[in-house]
Amino acid sequence: MGQAEFSDAIADFALTARPSAAALAMMRLSLMDWAACGIAGRDEPVAGMLRGLATEDGGTPEASVIGGPVRLPARAAAWVNGATSHALDYDDTHFAHIGHPSVAVIPAALAVAQGTGATGAALLEAALLGAEASIRIGVWLGRDHYQAGFHQTATAGAFGATVAAARLLGCDASQMRHALGLVSTRASGLKSQFGTMGKPLNAGIAAANGVEAALLAARGFVSNPSALDGEQGFGPTHHGMADAAALNDLGRAWMFETVSHKFHACCHGTHAAIEALRALDLSPEDVAAVTIVTHPRWLRVCNIAAPRTGLEAKFSYRLTAAMALAGWDTGALSSFSQAACVDPALVALRDKVDVQTDAEMPETAARVVVTRGDGGTRRGAHDLDAPMTLERRAEKLRAKAESLLGAPGAAALWAVTAAGEGPDLPGLAAALEG
Amino acid sequence: MGQAEFSDAIADFALTARPSAAALAMMRLSLMDWAACGIAGRDEPVAGMLRGLATEDGGTPEASVIGGPVRLPARAAAWVNGATSHALDYDDTHFAHIGHPSVAVIPAALAVAQGTGATGAALLEAALLGAEASIRIGVWLGRDHYQAGFHQTATAGAFGATVAAARLLGCDASQMRHALGLVSTRASGLKSQFGTMGKPLNAGIAAANGVEAALLAARGFVSNPSALDGEQGFGPTHHGMADAAALNDLGRAWMFETVSHKFHACCHGTHAAIEALRALDLSPEDVAAVTIVTHPRWLRVCNIAAPRTGLEAKFSYRLTAAMALAGWDTGALSSFSQAACVDPALVALRDKVDVQTDAEMPETAARVVVTRGDGGTRRGAHDLDAPMTLERRAEKLRAKAESLLGAPGAAALWAVTAAGEGPDLPGLAAALEG
Repeated sequence: MGQAEFSDAIADFALTARPSAAALAMMRLSLMDWAACGIAGRDEPVAGMLRGLATEDGGTPEASVIGGPVRLPARAAAWVNGATSHALDYDDTHFAHIGHPSVAVIPAALAVAQGTGATGAALLEAALLGAEASIRIGVWLGRDHYQAGFHQTATAGAFGATVAAARLLGCDASQMRHALGLVSTRASGLKSQFGTMGKPLNAGIAAANGVEAALLAARGFVSNPSALDGEQGFGPTHHGMADAAALNDLGRAWMFETVSHKFHACCHGTHAAIEALRALDLSPEDVAAVTIVTHPRWLRVCNIAAPRTGLEAKFSYRLTAAMALAGWDTGALSSFSQAACVDPALVALRDKVDVQTDAEMPETAARVVVTRGDGGTRRGAHDLDAPMTLERRAEKLRAKAESLLGAPGAAALWAVTAAGEGPDLPGLAAALEG
Repeated sequence: MGQAEFSDAIADFALTARPSAAALAMMRLSLMDWAACGIAGRDEPVAGMLRGLATEDGGTPEASVIGGPVRLPARAAAWVNGATSHALDYDDTHFAHIGHPSVAVIPAALAVAQGTGATGAALLEAALLGAEASIRIGVWLGRDHYQAGFHQTATAGAFGATVAAARLLGCDASQMRHALGLVSTRASGLKSQFGTMGKPLNAGIAAANGVEAALLAARGFVSNPSALDGEQGFGPTHHGMADAAALNDLGRAWMFETVSHKFHACCHGTHAAIEALRALDLSPEDVAAVTIVTHPRWLRVCNIAAPRTGLEAKFSYRLTAAMALAGWDTGALSSFSQAACVDPALVALRDKVDVQTDAEMPETAARVVVTRGDGGTRRGAHDLDAPMTLERRAEKLRAKAESLLGAPGAAALWAVTAAGEGPDLPGLAAALEG
């Protein structure tokens, strides 16, 4: 690609693309799942800390804050809601770039939609275009970017949040370019925060950065409109690979249609192994040794060998494997606790688990080998990219929302997100504010 | 250095170092110069845009905003004031890391000092320790970081702002470590914004990031306390060189004592050449050709060959050289205008200037060779690191403040910054708010 050709393509997409019905339907499900994760996460310490600081700072009441009690300026609301909705690490993931699109993009879109009085349909479309842009930019940045230590949720996510916010603010083509150029100097986020409050904060940072860039661009801020891909731009400075395949069928095919939702309350990297082990249906007392084979990139993400906190437990192949084998409910938030980390039966199982790698397998897949006490072995495998109908997905997400919020809360959320041309924004706001 | 040894040293310095009298005296001069640049920059478009957005967002009135009219939460004030004070590109520079320490650190320190009711002496000390930390971290990140495309003012500056803010918030050793770990995932800023509003914004971003990290750490936020220098930390991910020399005599010698102040209203990289040309005292009609020899690193900073705007003019060796030769007042803000870019006499001179490089010379120095119409040559050189007494510096800075603010404004600013144990904070606030 020539100089700034990538910026051109993204900016053009951001203003002119017409979403597919399937992609919009998927975003609607992600919106419900995002809201459920956010409401369930509102009492997490990181959520309380950000909400407390933002509420003390105060300001013009324009956008809803998950957990209330007051509305705040759009930037502040996006900051709190991004972190709050990622606090449980239970939100959606796209494996093409390995990022969580919704927690960066939806808080930005929602805050600006409320601030500008946009319709639910406009919010849905802006969130989808922002999410799609974040995935495409994430693919363009590529695995080198991720492996170097950058958290795509935060980095690619900030660009997606910018697209969503700038659309809702009615930015023109030039303003969209300047917004993308501006967020290039603001986007940040490191994987070295994983296992700390810094990981959810990264999502809030991305959402707030997007809102800020769009608000400034709408006021006429002049940045370098090629600062995403130009010389000394975000990609070149942040170990970006500039993978031109990121533009394949842009605006015609929607990568967001293959977003992945979580049905276990831990790092998405551990899910394929959990599914594979659970399908073997073994008794823990039969287990003499376990080998998990995964893509090597996950080792720096979710391979804490001996976790000490509930948060660390979510990033541990060994402990989550032990939980799956021991029949713990890995869909329940309460399973990931300090108590689990020191539970003698779990720790004993955990210490039988060995994690190995195979660079040839997809990042969405895992293979498992369990050696029984009698010397026999059982083998299993799972790939998270295995197809699922939209109906089946909706059913599983409603069940997940019920486990997070209870049946009435889940039903209310379903009602405000699933009906009509787009979500019922006042209803959604009321559900989030609680 | 071992894992996190650098983080340890910076955090220890941030809480325990006792400043030298000379360093404090230099910070006092920088505070006055910072305030003068900020007040003079308050009507720049970027300043008005940020002040407008932040004022519309509003919030708890705790910290002064340059240009007023209302006080804002500390983060917001730091954001506006960082950008406003860097809008004219007339503030101080440290060449050890090539960054502008005051515009990132002082806005953070001032906002938190006002929010916490700290004394002027505590503000001065916090600003100095923050500025020193930013220079040390900048040296540790090194030239690879800068050459890759990162703006040290923003990146190293965010860490310095964090140190200053965390000190004033009374953070303990653990909180200081978490604050530094937290800002590691937030610090950002690209040189590809140079010549646009994004450059001053970078300073505001740094100041706001520092305030945010310190406020969260003071509330007990848990980050990765080694995320500055640990695995996948800020340094390793941002082309940092991890130069251990950054710790030489930390807490005993003060690099801030050699900060450089600007006496020309353009990029500091152009100043040595301007001084060298001016000292030759030539008539423009005698000039047939000019060669400027500079360190090659400056080529990506201030070598716009044919600037088209006042902002671009500040980053042009060729045009600033023409101005120096033609006797334009390069200390006056008004000299850097679109009119200068198209002035026929200046453009004719500009087109006689050739920029060459010598990697062996200091980055603070320039050599010039002027060929006269009669074929003779004149040679000159200047190094910005040539020593200057504190008294001489104060005199030049007061003269600069007079040219920026007028005599009464400069005298008032001198009175509130130069007297007593530390600056008179209410007086400083009044001067900034205007």
